[in-house]
Amino acid sequence: MANTKYPTGVSVRLASRDGSLTGVTSGVAPSFLQANLIVLPSRYADDFRLLCARNPVPCPLLAESSQIGSHDSLKSYIDGLSGDAIASDIDIRHDAPRYMVYQDGKLVDSHVPDVTAQWTEDHVAFLIGCSYSFETALVNHDLPPRHTVTQRNVPMYRTNIPLCPAGAFTGSTYVVSMRPYARSDVEKVRDITRPFVTTHGEPIAWGWDSMRNLGISDINKPDWGDAPLEMDGQPLDVTNPDVVPVFWGCGVTPQEAVMRAELKGIVLGHAPGHMILLDVKDGDVFNVK
Amino acid sequence: MANTKYPTGVSVRLASRDGSLTGVTSGVAPSFLQANLIVLPSRYADDFRLLCARNPVPCPLLAESSQIGSHDSLKSYIDGLSGDAIASDIDIRHDAPRYMVYQDGKLVDSHVPDVTAQWTEDHVAFLIGCSYSFETALVNHDLPPRHTVTQRNVPMYRTNIPLCPAGAFTGSTYVVSMRPYARSDVEKVRDITRPFVTTHGEPIAWGWDSMRNLGISDINKPDWGDAPLEMDGQPLDVTNPDVVPVFWGCGVTPQEAVMRAELKGIVLGHAPGHMILLDVKDGDVFNVK
Repeated sequence: MANTKYPTGVSVRLASRDGSLTGVTSGVAPSFLQANLIVLPSRYADDFRLLCARNPVPCPLLAESSQIGSHDSLKSYIDGLSGDAIASDIDIRHDAPRYMVYQDGKLVDSHVPDVTAQWTEDHVAFLIGCSYSFETALVNHDLPPRHTVTQRNVPMYRTNIPLCPAGAFTGSTYVVSMRPYARSDVEKVRDITRPFVTTHGEPIAWGWDSMRNLGISDINKPDWGDAPLEMDGQPLDVTNPDVVPVFWGCGVTPQEAVMRAELKGIVLGHAPGHMILLDVKDGDVFNVK
Repeated sequence: MANTKYPTGVSVRLASRDGSLTGVTSGVAPSFLQANLIVLPSRYADDFRLLCARNPVPCPLLAESSQIGSHDSLKSYIDGLSGDAIASDIDIRHDAPRYMVYQDGKLVDSHVPDVTAQWTEDHVAFLIGCSYSFETALVNHDLPPRHTVTQRNVPMYRTNIPLCPAGAFTGSTYVVSMRPYARSDVEKVRDITRPFVTTHGEPIAWGWDSMRNLGISDINKPDWGDAPLEMDGQPLDVTNPDVVPVFWGCGVTPQEAVMRAELKGIVLGHAPGHMILLDVKDGDVFNVK
C-alpha cells in the first residue's frame, strides 16, 4: 500500500501541519522512519529517559526536544546523526496527523488535529521508534503485513508483561502491535525485522500460546487500531494453527505508562497509528537489505 | 560485612586464581565493580550482544573478550573506559572463585575451581554487571542488605517474566535477586540503587503481590544462593506486611537463557554469587554519592 502522494518524511509532516493528511501513516513515505510521540512536563524527563534506557524494545528513544520547551528543534539519540538530520523543518505541535491529550494520567481528548493550545514552555517532546519503519522491509521480502494489504490500522493490545520501572514510572506494562503470519514464515519475519533495533526490532512473542501468556483475551478486539482480518474480511481465525499472531513492542507503551503512573499535569501523545515522519531513511540507521 | 582481606578487585582475582578464595564475593573489595560471567561459542556472540541490548536490566553488558578466544584481555562497553582499565591482569578461566559448566544447554558440572580444560580458541567471554556493586551504597546509607548482615549468599529466583528474544535466545525469563526491606524504606532503596544503571539499577518489583506476579511460589526456597532469613535466623515471615521482598534483575539470567535456548556446545559461567572482580570502582562509572 505504498502511498506515492507522500514520498518523503517532510511531505507527510507538512500535510499533517496544513490539515490535508488526517489518517494513519502506515505505508506513507516508504522507508522513511516513523516516530511515536510523547510530550511530558520537564520534571518527568529524567525518569522517562531512564524508562526508555531500561525498556529499549518498546521504548527506543530516537530524539527529544533540543531544550525544555522546544517544539521545533531536536536533540538526537541516533549515533552519527544530528537533530537537524533527523527532522529539520518540524513542529511537534502540528506534525502528527492526530493527537491524544492526557491530564493527571487520564485521557481527556482524543484524535485532536494539533496541540498548540496545550503545549507549554515547560514541555519536553520525545520521539520513539515505530514498527511501521520495518514494514517496507517486510513488503520487499514478499511478506507484507496483513493490515497494509487490507488497508487498515495495525491492531495494538495491552499486555500483562511489566516494564522495568524507572522513578515515577511504576506499574506499567508493554503495549504490543500484532501482524499475523504463516507459522512457517515466522523465522524469516524475525530475521528481516531483527536489524531494526531502534524501531522495536524482532518480535517479542509469536504463536497462539504467546497470546495467552501476554494476557490478551480476544485477538479480534484490540485496545487501539483496527481489528485484524482474514483476507476474506472475516475476523481472525483463532483456531488456525498454521497462521499465528506475531507481536512486536509498540511505541504506544509510553502513553499507557503515563496513565498507569498517574503523571500529574498535561501530557501529549500522537494518536495510535498517526505518527510523525522523520527525514532519515531506514538505510541511514540500520544495516538492512 | 566489609572484607578487608581483599581490598581491591585484582586482589580478589589473584586469590581466586591461586585457589585461596573459594566462596561468594558479596562484601569483598568494597566499591569495586563485580561481574557475572558467561562464555559462549563464537557463533552465538552476535545474538548474545543483541539479547543484552534488548534486556539491559538483567543483562547489562560491561565488557567482552578483546577477540574470539581471548581469556586475558577485554573490550569495554563502558563509555570512557578501556578494556585494560576494566581489568588489566585478568584470566577469565581462573579469576572467578567457582564456575558452572553447561553442555548442549544442560548443566554438567557445578562449582568447579577453574575452566582451563573447557576453554577453547572459539570461546568468547562476556562480563555482565552485578547487583553486589550497589550493596556498598546501601550499607553507606544504613540500609545493609539482609544477606550481608546474616553473612549468607543473596537468594536468587527464576521468574515468569519473559526476556525479549534475540536470535537463538528464545523462551528465556528474568532471574532476580531479592533483598527484604521495610516497606517504608523501599522508595529510599529505589533512589539509592537507581544510578547504578549498568549493574541492574533500581528494583524491578517489590512487595508480596509482586512476588506472586513474578511466579515465585516460595520465597524461602530460592533457585540459587541461600534461603533468606529473619534477623533471628528463622525463615522469612511471608505474612509480615511491613517487611517486603524487593527484587532486582540478576546476572544469572544469561545462564538460564543458555539452558532455555538449549545452546549447542560448551558454555561456561561463574557459580552464582562467585563473581569476577574488576579494577574499576562504582564512582568511576556511576554518578553516586
